[in-house]
Amino acid sequence: MTFNTFGHMFRFTTWGESHGEAIGCVVDGVPPLIPLSEKDIQPYLDKRRPAQSRHTTQRKETDTVKILSGVFEGKTTGTPISLIIYNEDQKSKDYGEIKDSFRPGHADYTYMMKYGIRDYRGGGRSSARETAMRVAAGAIARKILGSSITIRGAMVQMGDDATAKRDWAQVPKNAFWCPDSATAKCWEKSLDTIRKEGSSIGAVVEIVAEGVPVGLGAPIYKKLDSDLASAMMSINAVKGVEIGDGFAAAARPASRRPLCCQAHQLDFNAS
Amino acid sequence: MTFNTFGHMFRFTTWGESHGEAIGCVVDGVPPLIPLSEKDIQPYLDKRRPAQSRHTTQRKETDTVKILSGVFEGKTTGTPISLIIYNEDQKSKDYGEIKDSFRPGHADYTYMMKYGIRDYRGGGRSSARETAMRVAAGAIARKILGSSITIRGAMVQMGDDATAKRDWAQVPKNAFWCPDSATAKCWEKSLDTIRKEGSSIGAVVEIVAEGVPVGLGAPIYKKLDSDLASAMMSINAVKGVEIGDGFAAAARPASRRPLCCQAHQLDFNAS
Amino acid sequence: MTFNTFGHMFRFTTWGESHGEAIGCVVDGVPPLIPLSEKDIQPYLDKRRPAQSRHTTQRKETDTVKILSGVFEGKTTGTPISLIIYNEDQKSKDYGEIKDSFRPGHADYTYMMKYGIRDYRGGGRSSARETAMRVAAGAIARKILGSSITIRGAMVQMGDDATAKRDWAQVPKNAFWCPDSATAKCWEKSLDTIRKEGSSIGAVVEIVAEGVPVGLGAPIYKKLDSDLASAMMSINAVKGVEIGDGFAAAARPASRRPLCCQAHQLDFNAS
Amino acid sequence: MTFNTFGHMFRFTTWGESHGEAIGCVVDGVPPLIPLSEKDIQPYLDKRRPAQSRHTTQRKETDTVKILSGVFEGKTTGTPISLIIYNEDQKSKDYGEIKDSFRPGHADYTYMMKYGIRDYRGGGRSSARETAMRVAAGAIARKILGSSITIRGAMVQMGDDATAKRDWAQVPKNAFWCPDSATAKCWEKSLDTIRKEGSSIGAVVEIVAEGVPVGLGAPIYKKLDSDLASAMMSINAVKGVEIGDGFAAAARPASRRPLCCQAHQLDFNAS
Repeated sequence: MTFNTFGHMFRFTTWGESHGEAIGCVVDGVPPLIPLSEKDIQPYLDKRRPAQSRHTTQRKETDTVKILSGVFEGKTTGTPISLIIYNEDQKSKDYGEIKDSFRPGHADYTYMMKYGIRDYRGGGRSSARETAMRVAAGAIARKILGSSITIRGAMVQMGDDATAKRDWAQVPKNAFWCPDSATAKCWEKSLDTIRKEGSSIGAVVEIVAEGVPVGLGAPIYKKLDSDLASAMMSINAVKGVEIGDGFAAAARPASRRPLCCQAHQLDFNAS
Repeated sequence: MTFNTFGHMFRFTTWGESHGEAIGCVVDGVPPLIPLSEKDIQPYLDKRRPAQSRHTTQRKETDTVKILSGVFEGKTTGTPISLIIYNEDQKSKDYGEIKDSFRPGHADYTYMMKYGIRDYRGGGRSSARETAMRVAAGAIARKILGSSITIRGAMVQMGDDATAKRDWAQVPKNAFWCPDSATAKCWEKSLDTIRKEGSSIGAVVEIVAEGVPVGLGAPIYKKLDSDLASAMMSINAVKGVEIGDGFAAAARPASRRPLCCQAHQLDFNAS
Repeated sequence: MTFNTFGHMFRFTTWGESHGEAIGCVVDGVPPLIPLSEKDIQPYLDKRRPAQSRHTTQRKETDTVKILSGVFEGKTTGTPISLIIYNEDQKSKDYGEIKDSFRPGHADYTYMMKYGIRDYRGGGRSSARETAMRVAAGAIARKILGSSITIRGAMVQMGDDATAKRDWAQVPKNAFWCPDSATAKCWEKSLDTIRKEGSSIGAVVEIVAEGVPVGLGAPIYKKLDSDLASAMMSINAVKGVEIGDGFAAAARPASRRPLCCQAHQLDFNAS
Repeated sequence: MTFNTFGHMFRFTTWGESHGEAIGCVVDGVPPLIPLSEKDIQPYLDKRRPAQSRHTTQRKETDTVKILSGVFEGKTTGTPISLIIYNEDQKSKDYGEIKDSFRPGHADYTYMMKYGIRDYRGGGRSSARETAMRVAAGAIARKILGSSITIRGAMVQMGDDATAKRDWAQVPKNAFWCPDSATAKCWEKSLDTIRKEGSSIGAVVEIVAEGVPVGLGAPIYKKLDSDLASAMMSINAVKGVEIGDGFAAAARPASRRPLCCQAHQLDFNAS
């Protein structure tokens, strides 16, 4: 089965546990002659890197990616591209207590029930660390798509506090990737309070793709909406996905909707 | 590619256009020795059948399903099960106008751009009629799951009017499959008004599965949440999917969530 | 799993038992705008049809194929093409003896051990009748390939009597599809004798494809040689496959082989 | 597409070029709780290792395999197992001539035509070096199968000189893995002569599996014969595959064949 594989023509298989020696992926279906080096992938991993502010997990990792195959003289060759990131923050510690308990809301219990064994040093495969390899594979996909398609993302809601502002230039300037600098400041204070209470809080992320060609994707079970929803929901902790108007569409009579929903803009939300 | 195929171990491939001679599916991966006849499938198709009230599409179809293979002496044999439903309401009519225009919100334009040809007699493959074969395949899946898992569904919101009541006994008793008889009556009036205005309106459906074994599904890219989201989003007009608390989870600090989210109950919403 | 599916971009799923109501297949991945009707498929089925001479199985079938979906106004639409052939020779008879015994060399015993049930009326899925749907799907593939690729086949050996002659014009003129009319006459006599002894005999079939573009197929596990071998071996009774020189290549030092094996000619043998 | 992936429930994806930094594979679908370490895999790689005699390629590699994921405290966890072998014999040299010519009988030309780029330092992906990862993945498969199935292989023919002897104890004792010590000595002399002529020669390998359960594999397109043929033909230079009696079966009337071909013994030849 292809549990650890995502995609159709372009497909990647990820491997590695959060506290193992390394994590990696094999990207198959990349067209030949695409210029590619680690420099095309690393910036996306740097954005994702934890411990850049006090608001995220404090695990220290440089997440330096290395291409092991599929690229020759600076170009893809059409053969599988193997990527690897060595784990640095694997400090041996006493797992005595963790070993015998399950963290609420995590997949530990499910893995134990399903496989009869679990890597108690951390989330193993179900750790958010697995998403680093999606980011790396995504960076290659980004190169293939070219510059006619733009894809932007931002965090637009924390807890029940949503912002309607979309000042994309602000996104990389605050710790929350928020498109509204004022809101980002509020969130900073709120989150400090929540963290002091020993708690955490949910968020909504919005992604906007522009320049998407009409007819991209495949019909029925592999349609773009379906693949996007599947991808989003496979990220740990994601519990909802909306495309276009999403749930708001349910509340509006059809006559008040725009007559022509063109395919060149695609918005979707994942919480 | 497997555009028209859904599933992994149990998988089905659907075929047929809304105004073609027939629609059907091939269900592969069904274990042997499961007692199966058309009588196990027909009741689910009868529930789905259009034109049972004035509130749905008025197309007249009996949707009589026939098993063409994979069953011998009343039992599955482990070989592919071919199901067919002949289309009855294929009346030849003047498509003059429809032929040259695209219906807003439908996939007509996308198909035309992608394939350079479309079946202008109706939605073709993108018609909601395709879902009849999912219902048929689902009826077989239901037989395989056995009685320890219960799955119930209801329409819990129309437009912006949601009901909190879950009186499951009411569901089959009204035209909206609503778990609240009072709300169903309101919806009936509202929808009559909306229909007179020549409009339509969205809805939210809730599905509750109980008795689901811990660890069902596969990890990462094929996890149950991911497969459910993919399946829901592949249904025409579905624009949002929530699992468990869904978007509401974003608004609640972690400390106020139940400590132990057990896997034996799974709720998800699709709008 | 995709037990009953063959192919990658172009893929078909077959269904149906030898003594069921019908057999059929769903062909997915057919490009749009290919002119297609039953007339493109039927001639290949007519060639395959049993009981055309006394030398083959005497089952009487017209094997009339019907297209149920995927074609609109004489052209493919890019949607799945469903093909069906109704079984005519399903006469009810007394299966008393057959029911409790297994035919040597057939898959009956294997199916019974694997599934705990078998369709004792005939070979079920393992019947050579399943190959009718490959022929039908192949006829569609043939249309897609176009006229620049030619594919020819002939029976070149019966028992230990092989012919070196390749007079392709003779192939459709004798009951053995033999490219040598003199040999065909010998085989006729031999086979009559063998049949009177209540026995049967094996054969070698040669297929020659010309005009195949360099690089057709995919590397490594899906390379053309690999896919062809897999396809051939999945036919009942096939026990050997050779590509190019096949086993003869083992016997020849490399220096005596042609320096440049070009990809525009591809021969393979299947016994 | 899954060009670089082999298998169904148990499946592996290989990556890496003959002259790249490393080669590797990701093995998915391994059941949990199987005891596994590098010590289970290395002996098979040692057997395969080139340059153990003067009769094979003289490339020097220790082929030391490392497990990067999927094993915790000496047992498999059900998650993907990543294996890596670093290439040692990557000496930088002058590729001046090789760069602009294609080696006869190799896939260089095909890759160039297909992808417009090739790794001219060696066979790249089409190098026999890719088979090292199949051996590694196969070693894991071997652990899963357990001791009730025995699989043995030997080289039984070189050029046109075949041996009928099957003294399995002799196999590991000579440079040809020949089950007949006298024949091995002849081959040694012959091959020295052939090599001095600057030539090479083909061979036939026989593999015998015993204790195979009836019904192993899947029907039709994924039947065991089909998967074995596909796997064998995907190995560079393999041009023919026989199962059981293979081509010899064609030459024998059915009445002279054994009445009951039991599935507990499976022989196949690959040249």
